[in-house]
Amino acid sequence: MLPKAVEPLQFESLPQVSLETGNGKTKSVAPLHKLTDADLNPFILNAKYAVRGRIPMEAEKLKHQLVEHPGSLPFDKIINANIGNPQQLDQKPLTFYRRVLSVLEDPELIETAEIASIFPADVISRAKELLKSIGSIGAYSHSQGVKIVRDAVANYITRRDGFPADADDIFLTAGASTAVSYLLELLATGPETGFLIPIPQYPLYTATIAMNNATAVPYYLNEDDDWSIDPTELVRVIENSIAEGVIPRCLVLINPGNPTGAILKEDDIAELLGVAAKYSIFVIADEVYQENVYRGEFVSVKKVLRKLQSSDKSGYYDDVQLASLHSTSKGLTGECGQRGGYMELIGLDPSVRAQINKLASISLCGPVTAQALVSLMVNPPKPGDASYPLDHQQREKVYGDLLKRAHLLFSSFNEMEGVSCQNPMGAMYCFPRFDLPEKAVLESQRAGVAPDVFYCEQLLLHTGICTVPGSGFGQVEGTYHVRTTFLAPGTDWIEQWKTFHAEFMATYR
Amino acid sequence: MLPKAVEPLQFESLPQVSLETGNGKTKSVAPLHKLTDADLNPFILNAKYAVRGRIPMEAEKLKHQLVEHPGSLPFDKIINANIGNPQQLDQKPLTFYRRVLSVLEDPELIETAEIASIFPADVISRAKELLKSIGSIGAYSHSQGVKIVRDAVANYITRRDGFPADADDIFLTAGASTAVSYLLELLATGPETGFLIPIPQYPLYTATIAMNNATAVPYYLNEDDDWSIDPTELVRVIENSIAEGVIPRCLVLINPGNPTGAILKEDDIAELLGVAAKYSIFVIADEVYQENVYRGEFVSVKKVLRKLQSSDKSGYYDDVQLASLHSTSKGLTGECGQRGGYMELIGLDPSVRAQINKLASISLCGPVTAQALVSLMVNPPKPGDASYPLDHQQREKVYGDLLKRAHLLFSSFNEMEGVSCQNPMGAMYCFPRFDLPEKAVLESQRAGVAPDVFYCEQLLLHTGICTVPGSGFGQVEGTYHVRTTFLAPGTDWIEQWKTFHAEFMATYR
Repeated sequence: MLPKAVEPLQFESLPQVSLETGNGKTKSVAPLHKLTDADLNPFILNAKYAVRGRIPMEAEKLKHQLVEHPGSLPFDKIINANIGNPQQLDQKPLTFYRRVLSVLEDPELIETAEIASIFPADVISRAKELLKSIGSIGAYSHSQGVKIVRDAVANYITRRDGFPADADDIFLTAGASTAVSYLLELLATGPETGFLIPIPQYPLYTATIAMNNATAVPYYLNEDDDWSIDPTELVRVIENSIAEGVIPRCLVLINPGNPTGAILKEDDIAELLGVAAKYSIFVIADEVYQENVYRGEFVSVKKVLRKLQSSDKSGYYDDVQLASLHSTSKGLTGECGQRGGYMELIGLDPSVRAQINKLASISLCGPVTAQALVSLMVNPPKPGDASYPLDHQQREKVYGDLLKRAHLLFSSFNEMEGVSCQNPMGAMYCFPRFDLPEKAVLESQRAGVAPDVFYCEQLLLHTGICTVPGSGFGQVEGTYHVRTTFLAPGTDWIEQWKTFHAEFMATYR
Repeated sequence: MLPKAVEPLQFESLPQVSLETGNGKTKSVAPLHKLTDADLNPFILNAKYAVRGRIPMEAEKLKHQLVEHPGSLPFDKIINANIGNPQQLDQKPLTFYRRVLSVLEDPELIETAEIASIFPADVISRAKELLKSIGSIGAYSHSQGVKIVRDAVANYITRRDGFPADADDIFLTAGASTAVSYLLELLATGPETGFLIPIPQYPLYTATIAMNNATAVPYYLNEDDDWSIDPTELVRVIENSIAEGVIPRCLVLINPGNPTGAILKEDDIAELLGVAAKYSIFVIADEVYQENVYRGEFVSVKKVLRKLQSSDKSGYYDDVQLASLHSTSKGLTGECGQRGGYMELIGLDPSVRAQINKLASISLCGPVTAQALVSLMVNPPKPGDASYPLDHQQREKVYGDLLKRAHLLFSSFNEMEGVSCQNPMGAMYCFPRFDLPEKAVLESQRAGVAPDVFYCEQLLLHTGICTVPGSGFGQVEGTYHVRTTFLAPGTDWIEQWKTFHAEFMATYR
């Protein structure tokens, strides 16, 4: 029983093996040894994801320290301003959503005598309607997602844009990240494939591009003009890239912007679509913050495309290929942990669609409760529905709190010495710029970290406020930024940040 | 407003661009054109996933036809025996699980006056315990998963194996597929990376290997000996592969087997671990069917490894690297649509663990309700708990139905002319072998499909029974198999299959 099955191998008898290291070089390795990271996929090694990187990991350790040794730090809790995770912080789930999902988890609730005194009638009727179509939420759905949910999404988009949408073009995904992953891995054919990404950007993009051995082609947002995109600059970047042998295949637009909080103007989107049409560039519109609008107006890329297509009869815009992404994780829903989302695909060749279908099939399906949540998000209670008054009041509260803290953060940053911040228009982030004194830069060099990392680390160690250094998102060389959410409850932490900053400047000025 | 932003490009002015096509060849393409599949990642184009492939897609069309034109086909419904999707078919969700999840979705239920008359006390206490640790299920969890759930998993493994497990080694994943995806993409460094996969296998493996440009190194299971693995044959395959320059980095064991329904013997696992130790091969133990056992006994690879490590003092087995996968989708839980699962990582270098952490971070986290479901699966109601009697009775029913249909299918196949089937030991599949007559093979060639595809297609068109041809899983050249689940309710469909088969043989014999 349990014999040693085989004799130990004579390692020296085996040839060294040449392996590609991903940068065109090769290395020789003994084929048989316990794996270390040097043996792994070099493209994955290259990927970076700062949102849960160095500073958040330090914060996690400090959180444990506070539990084990209360009072051992100059603060009594960690403020997680590093990640857009509303329900970890102040934001309460919308009651209507959760009640319907509760019934979907336990449909026998409908049969109980007590149900009518617990849940309003529209909760029950909505749950019944979903259950009739879904069956059990414990069964795999169609790879593209439950049809009744895709119908609801198509109706939402039609209402939003004033142009029809088709349920067949909708794919339900596990958050928007899954959609990004499908699209990028499908479009990436090697280092000659370029992905035009805004700088600063949400690092999911650079990480996924790196993992797929493609090339990120950065285009810089104009900080001084509300982080806008200059189409002329974009064309320059494209032409340069082509000249260097990297074909830009895909343009990523994040609107409203993460981490910038900017919202693209309709005219700018039209110009960008003109560029995409000219160069046959696939457009990914990451629109997960479309409900988080504080100034100006959100206009979807799809709507602008349809307007262009109907006003321009030359057919110039007909072949634009667009994937528009949305999610249940942000907005007033804020249900990050449920992992719901959708993408709408427009203008794709059927052979490309078939490959996306295949990728979705291999992953089987997104969580079915989250698919149901998508249908609730795009079709919330209406005036007259039993759940409407409470739902409306909850939405007003969530929105009002976000707006209040966005303003407070914005004005606080602009009061701090050497700090400037654009007035956030959307999303849930500020991305203030810090003109750090020479002495702080020298100190960070001594510590062997980038100056923005040094600042964020000091901020964390002194106040417990966890943010992400701008270098994780990209920034103009020699400038330093910090991304912070405005989700954390209360305003005390903003006061603490101001106090810290004054002390930091007094030390390093 | 909405100007045409840029002049149409002079396409002929742009150089042709050389692209790798993935098989070492290059092609020239005009850089600017609407994408077709020829422009996409060739490794993704190469991936195949038969479980939702040709036959299931035909079945989907027939299902629509039956809705639109009832009575237009020789059957009145589709029997989805192609995919292990219990709750799409007969299997009811376990009430205890769903009640707890229902409270997690709407924690305000706990505060209602009626709750005590709706849910047993252990449902409420379990939900409270989870909520206390999780907070809101709408927040992203730790990338590795909620700690209290990982603790529960570690306790389960400790009880199951009699060897301790550590919550730090547990990663909660969105089904087992996500774990497979992380591991394979991380280990794949190019075509010189070999993945030893059983033939027949679950096509997630070949698909993911293809997508990551690595090499599937097949080892054949011995059909005549309950689909067992011969370690000597495995060594031969490894040595051959090394000689050809493909280093086997990873051994995939599917136990209980999909599609074979076989269960590995403890002694065989020990020998296979000896091979893995000798050649420093990372082991993936896909153990998602560990609860689906009808004959013999399931012993985990981890348990055998720990036994070997404690009995062998030479340290021979100390460096074995193991990932063991489990899921909430199968077994008596059968909650495919919830997307829950875990992997336990043993013996990995910290630098490799760090990369898996990073991949999990980039995906943010698995669905949090599904994480909670994992904790319920590994810690179900115990005798004495209020929910125990019903839960126990439901489990007996699910298990009994599976066992009954497994036997019936097995004996039915062996009664059919030219068909042989191993007696299923575990999982939820039979993989019978069909010795198809020469005339049927010729007919399939005329139709331009493989003989097993031809058989499955005829079966579908005549009876509505949807299965998957053996070629989707791999089979010895010249043999033909069909994978069918034994989940579909009733026994009528098995009788219909027998009738069809007799007619098929009468036609082509």
